[in-house]
This record gives sequence, C-alpha cells and structure tokens, in this order.
Amino acid sequence: MRLFYHPDTKDISLPGVLYALGDPIRLEIVKHLATEGEQPCAAVCEALGLAIAKSTMSHHFRVLREAGITCCRKEGTQHLNTIRRQDLEERFPGLLDVVLGCVQKAR
Amino acid sequence: MRLFYHPDTKDISLPGVLYALGDPIRLEIVKHLATEGEQPCAAVCEALGLAIAKSTMSHHFRVLREAGITCCRKEGTQHLNTIRRQDLEERFPGLLDVVLGCVQKAR
Repeated sequence: MRLFYHPDTKDISLPGVLYALGDPIRLEIVKHLATEGEQPCAAVCEALGLAIAKSTMSHHFRVLREAGITCCRKEGTQHLNTIRRQDLEERFPGLLDVVLGCVQKAR
Repeated sequence: MRLFYHPDTKDISLPGVLYALGDPIRLEIVKHLATEGEQPCAAVCEALGLAIAKSTMSHHFRVLREAGITCCRKEGTQHLNTIRRQDLEERFPGLLDVVLGCVQKAR
C-alpha cells in the first residue's frame, strides 16, 4: 500500500529530478539514503545533524518523493525512505551515480 | 574582458548546477549550446521556437551563467554564450555528458 504520491517510472522527469537534487540539504539526504539504505526521516535528520524545522525536512522529503527520487512507506509511526535506484537507472542511466560521485568531490 | 559575473571554477557548486539544470527551458538552452557551440541569446531563442518574453529568457541565461554552466561575452550588440565544458568537467567529471544524454532519452 502506498500512502503517498509517487510518480510512475515513465513519468519521472529530468528537470524534476535535477531540480529536486539542486539543493544542498536534499543532496545530503539522497547521499545518506544511498549509503545507508532504507531510513526513517527522523534518523536521516539526526544523522545529518541538521538543526532545521521538522516541517522543512518534511518539505525536502516530499520534493524528493514527488520527483521520483525516493519512495516513502509508512510502518507504524515511522516514514521509511529509500532511493528508487532501479527506477532512476531505468529512466536516466548513470545520472544518480554521477551525481553521488560529485557530492563526494564537492565537499 | 568579462562584463558579467562568472564564478571561478572552484566556486561552481553542485546544488547550484543541478538547480540551474532543473528547468525544461534551461535544459533545452544547454542542449542547444552543447550541440551548436557559441550562440547569441537571440539565436538560441529562435532555434528553440520559444514564445516567451525576452526578460524570461534573460533570466534563464543569467541563472545558467551564475551557476557556472555557461560563459557569456559581449560582441557588438550581441551576447554570445558557450558551455563551460572544461570547467564543468574539471569540477564535476561526467555530469554534463550524463545529463545531456538523459535530455535525449527524456523526449
């Protein structure tokens, strides 16, 4: 069951993906999920040590989900997020890996 | 002589580049410049057949330039734009090529 809107793979747009990745916090979230696998929102915030409002973080997770970059499912009271690696690779081959590689370099 | 602000290569940021590319019109501009080489703004607008205001196009060219994706120089009354391929490749290897490849696929 999907409680949240997730675009179909074919509807994932390139400008949408690039826009969603075009923010330092969202890039950090994606990097963290790519490294750690499925994670609750709260754990991501804690791991990144970001002192920002919960509503701001929710916004960032929503932008990533609606762009087709992440998938979010509810388990109990937690929202668990994963990267849609296979869908992204199918739609835009190589893009996520190059971006993740650049995140490392950009530090 | 550079009339406009262009970030140094080392100051080109990944979120900034991704944000600038995260727009369908700017992606088309970049695609066109990558294919055709240096082009005046007016020629790009005409080639893309975009019926949008000149001020909107100027905004898009400015976002691309300030993100470090394009270089703009003035020659007579024309503003000539090129992609900063070498700078981008040095800063974020592979990124531009992957994105340009995805633009093709996204159509």
